[in-house]
Amino acid sequence: MKKVVLLGGGNVAYHLAKQLMRSQKYQLIQLYNRSLLSSHFQEIITEKTTHLEALLPADIYILSVKDEAIAALCEQLPFEGQLVVHTSGSVPMEALSPRQRRGVFYPLQSFSKAQAVDFAKVPFCLETEEASDYALLEDLAKEFSPKSYAIDSLQRQYLHVAAVFLNNFTNHLWYLSEQLCTREGIPFELLCPLLEETYLKGQQLSFFEGQTGPAKRGDRAVIEKHLALLQGIEKDIYKDISTSILNTYGK
Amino acid sequence: MKKVVLLGGGNVAYHLAKQLMRSQKYQLIQLYNRSLLSSHFQEIITEKTTHLEALLPADIYILSVKDEAIAALCEQLPFEGQLVVHTSGSVPMEALSPRQRRGVFYPLQSFSKAQAVDFAKVPFCLETEEASDYALLEDLAKEFSPKSYAIDSLQRQYLHVAAVFLNNFTNHLWYLSEQLCTREGIPFELLCPLLEETYLKGQQLSFFEGQTGPAKRGDRAVIEKHLALLQGIEKDIYKDISTSILNTYGK
Repeated sequence: MKKVVLLGGGNVAYHLAKQLMRSQKYQLIQLYNRSLLSSHFQEIITEKTTHLEALLPADIYILSVKDEAIAALCEQLPFEGQLVVHTSGSVPMEALSPRQRRGVFYPLQSFSKAQAVDFAKVPFCLETEEASDYALLEDLAKEFSPKSYAIDSLQRQYLHVAAVFLNNFTNHLWYLSEQLCTREGIPFELLCPLLEETYLKGQQLSFFEGQTGPAKRGDRAVIEKHLALLQGIEKDIYKDISTSILNTYGK
Repeated sequence: MKKVVLLGGGNVAYHLAKQLMRSQKYQLIQLYNRSLLSSHFQEIITEKTTHLEALLPADIYILSVKDEAIAALCEQLPFEGQLVVHTSGSVPMEALSPRQRRGVFYPLQSFSKAQAVDFAKVPFCLETEEASDYALLEDLAKEFSPKSYAIDSLQRQYLHVAAVFLNNFTNHLWYLSEQLCTREGIPFELLCPLLEETYLKGQQLSFFEGQTGPAKRGDRAVIEKHLALLQGIEKDIYKDISTSILNTYGK
């Protein structure tokens, strides 16, 4: 069995460790954290340490710590030439120390603290400095999910931006929509069927074809009416997204 | 049975007529269109006319025509003091002629030409000039859907804006996200599980609580990194929505 050491005590580290416990091909031989691990790590049965000098020899070291801590932690590792990967979506592979064989092992998903993680649905984005390490990382990813992709550091940055548009910004538009209703005394439940339809249509049609609304039709009279009802940053958002739709459809 | 006359030959008119054919309480006694109805109206078995002078006496006249045509059509009706409603989300009730008892009968949903309509899920937004007409319109709405709401013309305008944010703008953000991936050679399928999660989380948590991402965390370093990767209107959209999230969470 290949040996894995996991460094980190957060949410991602916990879920990765839990899944590794089930692996037949990879053994989680050690968990490192700079301070004592929180109590839910008790179910992870493996050697635990808070001392970097005590790190055991392994095939892969996974650094699953906060973005800001990755570089410094890697710098302090008491060995050289090992396969060391981080799990971050926004930190370049080059943030890792060049004394190691560097890589990235990034599960693309918005981890909520409370929610359980079904890794089977999570795509893994992989990158290795040395081509010969890629197969090993790909094989490890298979223990978590059937889907893995070779994504380099620049692509990973764009992927993160794309995820922000898709997830974070979408959720905020829904919040703004709800706020508009609340302010005007309109029950938001009125819009729930439309939200469902938006999502289902997105699954069936291309986003390009599925677009509807005043900006898609080039209906500037309605756009002006709507802008007159809005203020501040909501008005700016309405104006910009409408402009982008008008541009997209050449109106 | 109460008598209904439907005016219009478009998509909404067709779906309304089809549903009215099934009603035990309301009889669609006539369909008017200014030109010959398209062939799929053949399945609507009722008297059809292209002459306004031939309109039959009825309890409710439903004008289901284009926004721009509502006022002129209503002006030409060869009678007075009847309950006349339109089905538009963005036209005020006052666009109808004051010679009639005016009202609005607005099914809130994004009607796609191809897709079948399950009215049971569609909320109806109702408004009548005379309070005594409201019960009749509410009763008619029940033939289509269990959900109807009293929504006045100003609320209906805000509702339309809220629907634009929720549906049209959301779809466009998804399109932009997909474009970003395509430009950078990233398979968009990578983001599909995140899209599903975005929707499911929106069903489970409040949008306010469910927000994640750099702007929610107040992570200005990541925001600046992302802005450096974007240009033009996409950059403006990123900036505005991030500002709105920062404001919302007091970061």
